[in-house]
This record gives sequence, structure tokens and C-alpha cells, in this order.
Amino acid sequence: MVHNTDPFPTRLKKKRDPFVRTDPVVHSRNQHRWEGPLDEVALSRYERDGFLWFEGFFNQERMTPFFDELKEMAKDEKLMESDQIINDPNTGEIRSVFGMHELSDHFQRLTRDPRILGMVRQLLGSEVYIHQSRINDKFGFEGSGFDWHSDFETWHSEDGMPRMRAVSASLMLTDNTEFNGPLMLIPGSHHYFVPCVGETPDLNWKDSLKAQRLGVPDRDVLAMLADRGGIKAPKGPAGSLMLFECNTLHASNKNMSPWPRSNLFFVYNSVDNKLGKPFSTGTERPEFLGARENCTPLSMHDEFPELANQGVTPPKYHGY
Amino acid sequence: MVHNTDPFPTRLKKKRDPFVRTDPVVHSRNQHRWEGPLDEVALSRYERDGFLWFEGFFNQERMTPFFDELKEMAKDEKLMESDQIINDPNTGEIRSVFGMHELSDHFQRLTRDPRILGMVRQLLGSEVYIHQSRINDKFGFEGSGFDWHSDFETWHSEDGMPRMRAVSASLMLTDNTEFNGPLMLIPGSHHYFVPCVGETPDLNWKDSLKAQRLGVPDRDVLAMLADRGGIKAPKGPAGSLMLFECNTLHASNKNMSPWPRSNLFFVYNSVDNKLGKPFSTGTERPEFLGARENCTPLSMHDEFPELANQGVTPPKYHGY
Repeated sequence: MVHNTDPFPTRLKKKRDPFVRTDPVVHSRNQHRWEGPLDEVALSRYERDGFLWFEGFFNQERMTPFFDELKEMAKDEKLMESDQIINDPNTGEIRSVFGMHELSDHFQRLTRDPRILGMVRQLLGSEVYIHQSRINDKFGFEGSGFDWHSDFETWHSEDGMPRMRAVSASLMLTDNTEFNGPLMLIPGSHHYFVPCVGETPDLNWKDSLKAQRLGVPDRDVLAMLADRGGIKAPKGPAGSLMLFECNTLHASNKNMSPWPRSNLFFVYNSVDNKLGKPFSTGTERPEFLGARENCTPLSMHDEFPELANQGVTPPKYHGY
Repeated sequence: MVHNTDPFPTRLKKKRDPFVRTDPVVHSRNQHRWEGPLDEVALSRYERDGFLWFEGFFNQERMTPFFDELKEMAKDEKLMESDQIINDPNTGEIRSVFGMHELSDHFQRLTRDPRILGMVRQLLGSEVYIHQSRINDKFGFEGSGFDWHSDFETWHSEDGMPRMRAVSASLMLTDNTEFNGPLMLIPGSHHYFVPCVGETPDLNWKDSLKAQRLGVPDRDVLAMLADRGGIKAPKGPAGSLMLFECNTLHASNKNMSPWPRSNLFFVYNSVDNKLGKPFSTGTERPEFLGARENCTPLSMHDEFPELANQGVTPPKYHGY
């Protein structure tokens, strides 16, 4: 099922070397229409590292209602039995909830926050829509980690996302510490596309969301990229925000602490980068993993309008 | 097989609450005979936290020959098949090598380093011998973690160590970073003995050294102690040293980096605290896990005599 013209060949029978991407990282360069809150230093950092970290982007207290709503959802038996809920392979606890913005108006409105949306449009140089949203939970002393991977590798091969023109916004609903399995990234890894070995079976997602086996780069390539760029794991209070490019390699370790870790992910895709046929399978994944129907460009909605008057735009960012 | 008079009951059928220890933490208080290189601040810190961290205790370059000798050992097929070598349950790679000081003169002499031995005698208030020595290895992207546990809990129940009067010296043979699975400790946890549930089968050690299931405290107790004392994971270059009390709860996570992590452990026990009958099993573990025959008090030997002239005694320590 590999397209002849596939610019990002992966899920291959034979190993193939990584290659440097040609897709832009910041898609709005010199386009006045998509000017936004990020200054040149921030844009250059994002271009270099593949992510930007905003410690304390929102006040911690603002995250509480979202966390509370999650607890309510956990009581919804029908929802808990749906495919949108992924359980931990070892403990059976909730590992991920997909389609958050469809389940809750509250979360849906948050995807349209003008501060986040302003930056995302600026990075992608176009109108954007939600490709996928999810929460990854790690309970105390639980929550297996996630192995190193590029999201784009999966979205391209299993969802038919044509190019590297998407960005993930990860909002910390709890504090992220060195002990509860924070997100780790390899700065600069987004510059390389790493073809992965292994053919994709149908319905791969039913297993891969529990523990990813396909689309995992070879260890020698990971070592090369980590030796070159190092590893970073930004840590901070609930309300902190990470923007990371769709092809940045990331991972996370087990939660060794008694304290839960809960991170919300909104994946924004450019309206000029909508999904086509999957590149490595014959079947499309469900709508909650990769939107095909609900791709309306997002309009801004201010869930926290009082912030607009507090001069938090442009937000402060911490580079690495 | 539980002794009626067992002061530290564990491996029980029913849950029992943790209790405050009565054994001293620093055993040489006001005994001039065991004065040593640690000052009052260091002793008080050790008493409070259950560990002391010495960043860059030895120069990194001094660790290289030890690491090289290890690589040579890995080529010894007969040794690699012995019980002293514990393999990772997931990957089959070497997880631990026990009895390091018996396998190598080089390591044996290091156990008698005057700087380390001086501190250990001071903490234990007596002559000391090596109860156990080991190396814990975590290769790049490998090496399962170790769940939270107290070493004393095992040494008491499975080896018959009577009291809390032992100290582990962990010397970093490689850099320890936040990404390669550094040792984590719960400061202050050594003040409590935490009885654990679960009867000990014979030859438990053959499994427990790969992945510990018995002697693991309940999660609510761990949460209480971590909420109270927090969690610390000292990090530093090869040559750094950690001294930690035998009852301090510790753990480590998986190595997520391409960089290996190799830590050497010498466990020093007081000559007044030699092993008796195991408290929870009928059979003694092998000599390389808990010395019964080779308990000669250690005499000082300076593997690095040139350090003595450089005024490194007392060594600098970093408290937490």
C-alpha cells in the first residue's frame, strides 16, 4: 500500500536511513497575514528545537475545573467502555482519553483560546482545525511510559497526513515533576524524518495506543539524535504549556511518584494539510484519532477573557 | 518461621502499620573512638534524610579503569553463567553483578578506601565488613527500574540481619542524569519500618533480584512518606558518591537515554550486626548476597594515595 510518490516512506520491510526534512518548521515566515504573538527569538527557538515551553502559561487554579470535569467523566460507564478510552496494558487504569474537545464544551472552547490559537496559526501559517485531542493520564506509581516516537510518523502512515504542518499544544493539568513521568523531547530531532521498519497491520491502533511497537525509530538513530541534541524534559506547575512540532521525537517514563500526572493534548493541523488516504494501511483510523469530517477552521473564543486585559500577550516563554 | 521476638516483623499475612524505628541512625554519637571525616552538619543531615550525596567525590577519570575491568568481566563466559549475574527480565542484558569485591582485587581495595571507610565507621560506630557488593547496570534505552523498597527489609527477613546498622556506599561509574534512571530516595523514610505483606517462598532471591514483588511497601504508606519527605534524585558526574542508610526507601526508573548508567554498591555492615538466622525463610541466601563467612573487619588501603595529600578529607558533601 505504499504510494509511489510518498515523500515520507516508513513502515518499511528494510531499514532506510533518516533524511533531512524539506518541509518548513515555521510556515508563516514573512507572511503578514499570520503575524502573531511569538517574536523572532521564539520563532527561531521553535525552528531550532522543535518545541517551546511556557512555564505557568495559565494560572494553576484555572486548570482545576478541567481536572474536575475529567473526574466526572470517569464516572460515565458508557464512555468508559468506548474505544476513545485507552487502558494501561499493565494496570487497566485509564491511560488516554481521545476526542476531549468533542466530549466537553469546556475543552472545546479551550481549543479556541486566542493566546494558544494565535501562536498555532502563526506557526502553521494558515487557518487550523483540531486533528486530534487527548488526555494522557499517569496515576501515582502507575502509568507505563511512552517509547520514543514522532507523532507525524504515525499520522502520515496511518492517517494520511500529507506534510509536516501540524503542532501539538500540551497543557499540564497537574504539576509535571522529574518523578511523575514528564514529557521528554530530543531538541532538533524534528529536522529529520526517520523511516521505521515493520509493516502496519489493520487495526494497529487498538494495540499501538497501549504500547507502541511500530513507528519506533532504531536505537542507533535515536542515539545519534540524542547525542547531537541532548534530551530535555521541561517541568513546571499545572497550567504550563508546551507547543511541539508534529515531527519532534518525544517519550516519557513511568510515574514513580504518588502524584498523578495528567496532560491535555490538542493537535492543530493546517487546513491546507487535511488527511488523505493512509500511506501504510488500507483502512482509515476512527474520527477521534484523526479528524476527517470535523475540519472546520477554528474561530477564537476566549474562555478566560479577563486574561486579555492583563497584558499576557505575548506570553513569556522559556527556551532551552 | 517468624521469630516471636522479631523487632521488625515483615512478610506478613496481614497488613500492619509502619512504626518509628528505635535503632540509632548515626551509631557513633559521642564516641571519640569513631570520630571521622564527617562534621556535625553532615551527620545531622544523614540522620534527618537517611543519605548524603557527594558530587564528584572522585575524579571522573579514576572511574575509567573500573568500568574497563567490568567490560573485561563481561567477556568471561563462565562468570556470565553464574548465579552472581542477574539478567534483566525483559531484555536479558546484565542487570546486576554481585560479589564485585571478591571478583576483583581492584574493587576489593576500593572497599577499603580510607575516605569512604572513615565515614562508614563513623556512621556505624564500629569496625565494619562488606555485607554485599554489586553493580547495577542500565544500558541505553534499557534497564527496567527498581520499585520502591528498603534494603534492610530484605536483609532482615531473608538474611537475618538483626538491626539497622548498615550503610550502602554507591559510587557512580557513569554520569547519572535525569534521563538514565538515577537512584531516587525518599528523605526521612529510614525513620520508619514498613512491614510488608506476603510470605517469602524458598529461593525467592532468584526472582526478586530481577523484579522485586515481595518486600514492597503498600502504596498508601509510600504516598504518606513521599508527601512528607518528598523525593530526591541526586545527579552528577561519574565519581560521585552516595551514602545511604540501610532502611532508606529508594527506587529507580527505566533508562530512557542512549547513555548507560552503571552504579557500584558496597554495603558495609557493623561487625556487631552480623547475620543470624533469616527471619522469614528457612534457608540462607548465598554468600554473595549476604556475607556470613567473610566478615573480617576492613583495614584501610589507599587505592588513590595521592588524594591524601590533596586535602580532600573531609570531603565536600551536598545536602538536600
